[in-house]
Amino acid sequence: MSEVLESYAQGSWFAPADEGAPLADANTGETVARISKNGPDVAAMVGYAREVGGPELRKLTFHQRANILKEVAKHLMGYKDEFYALSYRTGANKRDTMVDVDGGFGTLFSFSSKGRRELPNSTVILDGPLEPLSKGGTFVAQHVYTSRPGVAVQINAFNFPVWGMLEKLAPAFLAGLPSIVKPAGQTSYLTVAVVKRMVESGLMPEGSIQLLVGSHRGLLDNLGPQDIVGFTGSAATGALLRDHPNVVSGGVQLNVEADSLNCSILGPDVKAEDPEFDLYVKQVVAEMTVKAGQKCTAIRRVLVPSSMAEAVTEALKDRLAKVVVGAADNPDVRMGALVSLDQREEVRKAVKALRTSSELVFGDPEQVEVLGADAETGAFMSPILLRAEPGAKEPHDIEAFGPVSTVITYDTVAEAVELAARGQGSLVGSLVTNDEDVAREVVLGVAPWHGRVLVLNRDDAKESTGHGSPLPVLVHGGPGRAGGGEEMGGVRGVKHHMQRTAIQGSPDMLTAITGHWTTGSRRSVGDVHPFRKDLSQLRIGDTIESVERAVTRADIDHFAEFTGDTFYAHTDEEAAAANPLFGGIVAHGYLVVSLAAGLFVDPAPGPVLANFGVDNLRFLTPVKEDAVIKVTLTAKQITPRTNAEYGEVRWDAVVTDQDGEAVATYDVLTLVAKGTEQQG
Amino acid sequence: MSEVLESYAQGSWFAPADEGAPLADANTGETVARISKNGPDVAAMVGYAREVGGPELRKLTFHQRANILKEVAKHLMGYKDEFYALSYRTGANKRDTMVDVDGGFGTLFSFSSKGRRELPNSTVILDGPLEPLSKGGTFVAQHVYTSRPGVAVQINAFNFPVWGMLEKLAPAFLAGLPSIVKPAGQTSYLTVAVVKRMVESGLMPEGSIQLLVGSHRGLLDNLGPQDIVGFTGSAATGALLRDHPNVVSGGVQLNVEADSLNCSILGPDVKAEDPEFDLYVKQVVAEMTVKAGQKCTAIRRVLVPSSMAEAVTEALKDRLAKVVVGAADNPDVRMGALVSLDQREEVRKAVKALRTSSELVFGDPEQVEVLGADAETGAFMSPILLRAEPGAKEPHDIEAFGPVSTVITYDTVAEAVELAARGQGSLVGSLVTNDEDVAREVVLGVAPWHGRVLVLNRDDAKESTGHGSPLPVLVHGGPGRAGGGEEMGGVRGVKHHMQRTAIQGSPDMLTAITGHWTTGSRRSVGDVHPFRKDLSQLRIGDTIESVERAVTRADIDHFAEFTGDTFYAHTDEEAAAANPLFGGIVAHGYLVVSLAAGLFVDPAPGPVLANFGVDNLRFLTPVKEDAVIKVTLTAKQITPRTNAEYGEVRWDAVVTDQDGEAVATYDVLTLVAKGTEQQG
Repeated sequence: MSEVLESYAQGSWFAPADEGAPLADANTGETVARISKNGPDVAAMVGYAREVGGPELRKLTFHQRANILKEVAKHLMGYKDEFYALSYRTGANKRDTMVDVDGGFGTLFSFSSKGRRELPNSTVILDGPLEPLSKGGTFVAQHVYTSRPGVAVQINAFNFPVWGMLEKLAPAFLAGLPSIVKPAGQTSYLTVAVVKRMVESGLMPEGSIQLLVGSHRGLLDNLGPQDIVGFTGSAATGALLRDHPNVVSGGVQLNVEADSLNCSILGPDVKAEDPEFDLYVKQVVAEMTVKAGQKCTAIRRVLVPSSMAEAVTEALKDRLAKVVVGAADNPDVRMGALVSLDQREEVRKAVKALRTSSELVFGDPEQVEVLGADAETGAFMSPILLRAEPGAKEPHDIEAFGPVSTVITYDTVAEAVELAARGQGSLVGSLVTNDEDVAREVVLGVAPWHGRVLVLNRDDAKESTGHGSPLPVLVHGGPGRAGGGEEMGGVRGVKHHMQRTAIQGSPDMLTAITGHWTTGSRRSVGDVHPFRKDLSQLRIGDTIESVERAVTRADIDHFAEFTGDTFYAHTDEEAAAANPLFGGIVAHGYLVVSLAAGLFVDPAPGPVLANFGVDNLRFLTPVKEDAVIKVTLTAKQITPRTNAEYGEVRWDAVVTDQDGEAVATYDVLTLVAKGTEQQG
Repeated sequence: MSEVLESYAQGSWFAPADEGAPLADANTGETVARISKNGPDVAAMVGYAREVGGPELRKLTFHQRANILKEVAKHLMGYKDEFYALSYRTGANKRDTMVDVDGGFGTLFSFSSKGRRELPNSTVILDGPLEPLSKGGTFVAQHVYTSRPGVAVQINAFNFPVWGMLEKLAPAFLAGLPSIVKPAGQTSYLTVAVVKRMVESGLMPEGSIQLLVGSHRGLLDNLGPQDIVGFTGSAATGALLRDHPNVVSGGVQLNVEADSLNCSILGPDVKAEDPEFDLYVKQVVAEMTVKAGQKCTAIRRVLVPSSMAEAVTEALKDRLAKVVVGAADNPDVRMGALVSLDQREEVRKAVKALRTSSELVFGDPEQVEVLGADAETGAFMSPILLRAEPGAKEPHDIEAFGPVSTVITYDTVAEAVELAARGQGSLVGSLVTNDEDVAREVVLGVAPWHGRVLVLNRDDAKESTGHGSPLPVLVHGGPGRAGGGEEMGGVRGVKHHMQRTAIQGSPDMLTAITGHWTTGSRRSVGDVHPFRKDLSQLRIGDTIESVERAVTRADIDHFAEFTGDTFYAHTDEEAAAANPLFGGIVAHGYLVVSLAAGLFVDPAPGPVLANFGVDNLRFLTPVKEDAVIKVTLTAKQITPRTNAEYGEVRWDAVVTDQDGEAVATYDVLTLVAKGTEQQG
């Protein structure tokens, strides 16, 4: 007898006492593993996540967490063959498996990279600029994101047992939330295999990941306002979760990604001889057949101009006829099996319902030719193309979660937009057009109904990742029927797992709380020039107050001549006087910042390696001839890199004139050596 | 008989056929107005908002909408006396009325200002940077926010009949969503008065505001995935709305702000003689008595160190004893009436429940001395201070929505944080301390449980707006019991009313769709230097390709000497060679951008008035001596100001070297004349 799948709870593998029920190979019907409904104590798992996993994870900075994600991905890469072999048994062929397994690892790498590049090397994220709340500047506010002392519960769909787990785990992990993973039963053996490798790597902090195989009954009963449930699956199950008392009135945050009736629109400009015509047909067939159409992002509705309906339908039929269906591990197979015989029954029922208002134009839901497997015991199904009668309702309401799409016609661009909206909210829509006006009208029209919209044409087709691929850097989710949720999107997905709070107080208090120097707070001027301090010595608030320097007319004239920037406001007295903003000759903004650099720089070699950029430079007050300027530079943010001998220091720069007016404000960005070696 | 309040539906005032029920003056019990449950056809109101209001509003740009909000606020300012007189009848005294009426107008002004300063003068908001999705650069993505073709329904609480409406209307209006306002019955006569003035002003687009007085029964039944419901009120009603079928499975977006058990913590560092002690006591009393404690942000839990409990309690009692209760329009009255006799009954019941684990230390819930009104007929109540027994549960669970607070003691900072969290999520918390370490520990500890946290000390007290004041530029909302929602927060609140979508495509398509020049898309180089074009002539993509210029060692030496920036990497060959990033003498970054300006500038007077700033300057490749640079400048974003003769143009700047490598990238910000007069 096959082994019963184990859960990973409270730091140990938990084996159910009973034999469980068999999980069948999608291709052969053989038992792959057994699954029990009797899982570990869910209340104890939630408690362990809160009391052990969360605190351990939140001891780390965002960059440290990001590095762990990368190391985990590298570790998992070493076991790809093992995961691929199991994936085939779910009915996924090689192409499908790459999307799930490699796509999952790619998501870890992407979040690791985004985490290091776009988050601070600390535990608090600042959101937006400082908000001044008072004239005197003693009362200000800063929005911040902080980590919740809760748990991220993920309830996944059967179709992506690896990617589905990792795309939710990565942002939660970065956000400092421990995860409890609840895979869908049918394909859970693959999730179990991956989690086993993650756990044995020893890379992840204790308690930061737990795995619940079996029923999630009772799980939501143990959750509260600091917990988040990420659900991917049917809209019906999403609605059930949304109705749970702890969601309705217990403050549990629920994020739903539901299957949706995604559409792809062929632009009215596209003729049969255009490259976009072929791109459209190829894309529809690809989305129908990848994962045997068991994708929440698959194209269900094929929206084409009435005049092109015949040509598109024929081209789709021709291409679908070439799709080889069969055993997932056979390299000649283009489309594998559905995940189970039950799932095939569901799809057949949906096709029957769709046929009340659509004609079957390709495929037979009841039979299909199969390569390398037994058509009787495997969950195989032919691709099915339908063509909707005018005004048909069912294609906008009924989802066949398999290789099934329906051709629907439109007459005007406005009608195409209206039909797209009939899906009541989708994860993704696409438009194939080479007309920029069409693109603008359609995309802005359908955008409110979609989490993602792809425009495909001859220019981007070669590099496009396709209609059906959510990407870690882009939001994944959609309004209405698609669940109303949002996942991934780079650091957006991290922030969704955190709490945004407006912190009000004095500038000094905000500096102390955020660890980021706040305009108006204390500046520390010492005997040592801050450019002589390495990262181990430099402190937030360390300040350079420069000496003064006059800006003469000769300086301005000379700078104009030297740089070639002879703009009239710097060179022509009469014309400059007529300028409504200046009313006379002014120094170049670039001259002011160049002179400021001369005032704050400390020339000799030292820990400051380079000035690599400037942010938010604003010229506030014109600098007239014989103005006297000075600059104040204050260490604002210190970001040591976890894997380099230096880090970034952001300096607040204010150039003031003889009247104390700020003439320019900006951030100076430098690379500074860590210097910990010297510190011993 | 008083008039029956009318609704404003489908562009007309709707008078109910029946007499309705009386609404009593909180001070006197006299009838102010009558209210009927029989309102207008809600389905027709929703349809009108979607078909008339939304399309009219979305014809305008963000700046045009922002200007209307300002004009509406100015118009309403002219009727303050009228609104104040009605406000007194709700039991609100002058101070309370300022919060509601002036606070409401201030919110319109704030959103108007934020809308013009932080949103583009168009109809699409870009979110985050361009995401490169391919090596060749032909496939990229941009997140955008677009307006929903739906309606914003607001269901308000009785306590702020003006502010409550306007704080929800302003962001919805900016977002392009028409509003249906449903005020709470008890104080709806004031909301009606304000809406009458808004409508008669003729400033708001037809259908952009409708008013439903009476029951909102059936309203949610008519809503769908593009609609948003903003609810403010009790957690129990919030849960009811969350359970509506159209929220559970119909895709309606629901934002809840619920009353919460907000706490204020006295830091362990504060002694009785510190200024923070007085600040704490004053703040608690203010929050107990403003609006007679009928505020979702009031302080319900007074968390103090055990050692200070006696001193704080005594000081609170002393101060509460001085609070004059009475007729709202009496200038000597510090605290007005509760909104109704029914509300007073509710509060008395809650106080009774609280007393199971707390001792009454100030006030009598059954009687109070009243100035200028009849204590029998008005809904007056004494401030009530309770002191919790150790381990008391009720103060963390039961809310008395009136002038009621409970003193609770803690022994350690960790315990204070834990007690704060016992509220299960609050709109706001505050901390009074002068110790930065305490501030950091407490604020970061309680932040995940709060939408806003205020730190009060001697430095910010004078300018602080106080614990209880939500501000339009800050988020208002909180997790868990506070409803899990988020409102306002400047443009954050606008975005909450819009849909975020990732748009994928070629750079040219993204430029066409967003109206913002996208890196990698077409550049248009014409005969006319783009600096010679005014805003009416300039087009996105207009480009300057400069001539080349060599950067010699003499240039670098000279620049170092002239500016004083003698950093070793520019001046000392040996030291520069040892720099790990440069490996030899490099030109100053400021020299590079100064020379670039000389290459792209067009000197003679023309439509370009000034370069007012630079964004996102990054030095990518060191410029060594004898490098040859040139610059490409492309019009990226054009923002005409609605009330000036010029606008902003953002230019994409790329400086490249002789190998075609980008050595610096940045955005140049200029002010450019509109020139429409010349265009006629």
